[in-house]
Amino acid sequence: MDAAVVGLGLIGGSLLRALAAAGHRVFGYDLDPATRATARTAAAQAPASARWQVPGSLADTVHAAELVAVAVPLPAVGTVFDELAAARYTGLVTDVTSVKGPVHDLAAARLGPGARFVGGHPMAGREVSGFGAADPNLFDGAAWVLCLESGTRFDDWLGLAALVTSLGARVVPATAGDHDRAVAVVSHVPHLLANALAARVASDPLAATLAAGSFRDGTRVAAGSPALVAAMCGGNAAQAAHALDAVLADLAAARAALDGPDPIAALQPWLAPGSRARVGWPPRAGDSTVLRAEPGVLLRLGRVGGWVASVAPDRRTVTAVRPT
Amino acid sequence: MDAAVVGLGLIGGSLLRALAAAGHRVFGYDLDPATRATARTAAAQAPASARWQVPGSLADTVHAAELVAVAVPLPAVGTVFDELAAARYTGLVTDVTSVKGPVHDLAAARLGPGARFVGGHPMAGREVSGFGAADPNLFDGAAWVLCLESGTRFDDWLGLAALVTSLGARVVPATAGDHDRAVAVVSHVPHLLANALAARVASDPLAATLAAGSFRDGTRVAAGSPALVAAMCGGNAAQAAHALDAVLADLAAARAALDGPDPIAALQPWLAPGSRARVGWPPRAGDSTVLRAEPGVLLRLGRVGGWVASVAPDRRTVTAVRPT
Repeated sequence: MDAAVVGLGLIGGSLLRALAAAGHRVFGYDLDPATRATARTAAAQAPASARWQVPGSLADTVHAAELVAVAVPLPAVGTVFDELAAARYTGLVTDVTSVKGPVHDLAAARLGPGARFVGGHPMAGREVSGFGAADPNLFDGAAWVLCLESGTRFDDWLGLAALVTSLGARVVPATAGDHDRAVAVVSHVPHLLANALAARVASDPLAATLAAGSFRDGTRVAAGSPALVAAMCGGNAAQAAHALDAVLADLAAARAALDGPDPIAALQPWLAPGSRARVGWPPRAGDSTVLRAEPGVLLRLGRVGGWVASVAPDRRTVTAVRPT
Repeated sequence: MDAAVVGLGLIGGSLLRALAAAGHRVFGYDLDPATRATARTAAAQAPASARWQVPGSLADTVHAAELVAVAVPLPAVGTVFDELAAARYTGLVTDVTSVKGPVHDLAAARLGPGARFVGGHPMAGREVSGFGAADPNLFDGAAWVLCLESGTRFDDWLGLAALVTSLGARVVPATAGDHDRAVAVVSHVPHLLANALAARVASDPLAATLAAGSFRDGTRVAAGSPALVAAMCGGNAAQAAHALDAVLADLAAARAALDGPDPIAALQPWLAPGSRARVGWPPRAGDSTVLRAEPGVLLRLGRVGGWVASVAPDRRTVTAVRPT
């Protein structure tokens, strides 16, 4: 499949490399000329069978593509959609941003009527960013949500699922709403907690010196770019607020336990559910089953934590895995 | 130095192994006969020059020791102190528990008048526990608080600091109060946040499947034993509550930003201090300096995030490192 990637940061650059390594003809573009130059130099150093091209304009980049993956931060997605519409691009469009409801709304409003859009989100962030950190194996074993909405063309969804599973990812079918609710819990709130925690040592050198494993891991993602994290969490504000409220309510119970007459006895049952959940995480893959390739079947699979491991060549069935 | 370690979990077992590897004659004891048997078997398998002995009683274990390190969970410390007093042990006592004020109070009350006690805390926890996870290199480069109180015999403190630095640890001089305040920030609150976060996926299989790096790292320590974590946080309840309040106040500001008219713009400055603090952490070691071995000088060193790297043989000076 001839594909284009717009935005060559960590995720876009990794997708560019992964698609090229899988034998696809790939074009990459970034608004930043320096990033384009870096990507061109890297292409020249890649094996001849896994190179990519970096044209000088977005129009030239998407001209021959059957698929365009938009891999820019959320605040820039609308502009890229406008440019795709202006370039009269009519093929399939996907994205990799961390919030899906607003991107679906943007696609409907900016790509034009009849546009083919399937929202996507690979769960493969890292605390490093930029094309220099791009890794063609970044998606191997990673969950990659592909959104199934009432307006999604299912043949487009299956084609994209076939491509994404061929890169080693686990395709999780979900509505944009279910996605946004879940990532608020497991990604956006963790970022807010990490930053709140990291800020505590800013003016406390003794604490900074004593900080060890629990601080290191609990704050790792706070080292990321505030602009990117703000776009991610703020772009999913209602769901992030809802998920944060649940954590704050739970922490208020811990706070009350600390104030009680026997904090040790009170904390132990408070700690138990989180401990059990973490010991049981990540979910282990159960046996594979073959499922009919139908939106309702696949959405049920996603809701129980399952994923699509591959799409049959005739696209009538998928190989599905549920967690044990 | 002939030394005894009482309690052969992760920290006690690692200390036993580290002291034996450094050529000291070491005795270890654990209340659990199965742990004693495991420790005896491991001793037989260790190099002849780095073996330890595991007597069948606490009295036999501490009989010949000049130093006893108490490495049991906080709720058991008082009982061990009682047993040391009953065994008429009169040498130096230290501990490795994660809270220092209550242990100092216990030492004063239970070890008897004239007892020689220096509270300690190696910042080297891991999410694994038990003698099986013990590692003689666990303390290499780790911060290890040794408490300097008004009642501390300074020659005892310096002797212990010489021993601990010889194991590769960075000795951080601090009062018990300063220690308890700082570890609430960098250890106890991180544990509470990790458990509150991990609990969210217990009944949310889609979220558990989508959870990736930020959830994995933010919840890592939640896999630890609720009993141990409850003892740690609940044993420092007042300071943990104070540190948790600061995080909750900060998160309330993030919550307000999410509710505002432009969450992305509002979150970015909220995220910046934590991001800066995490990028600057861990503190880098500055040049070494020689300091007079005096309590006031050393406490000032600890308060600015510095540590003792070694103690001069004549114990008149220490080599100190401040963070840059």
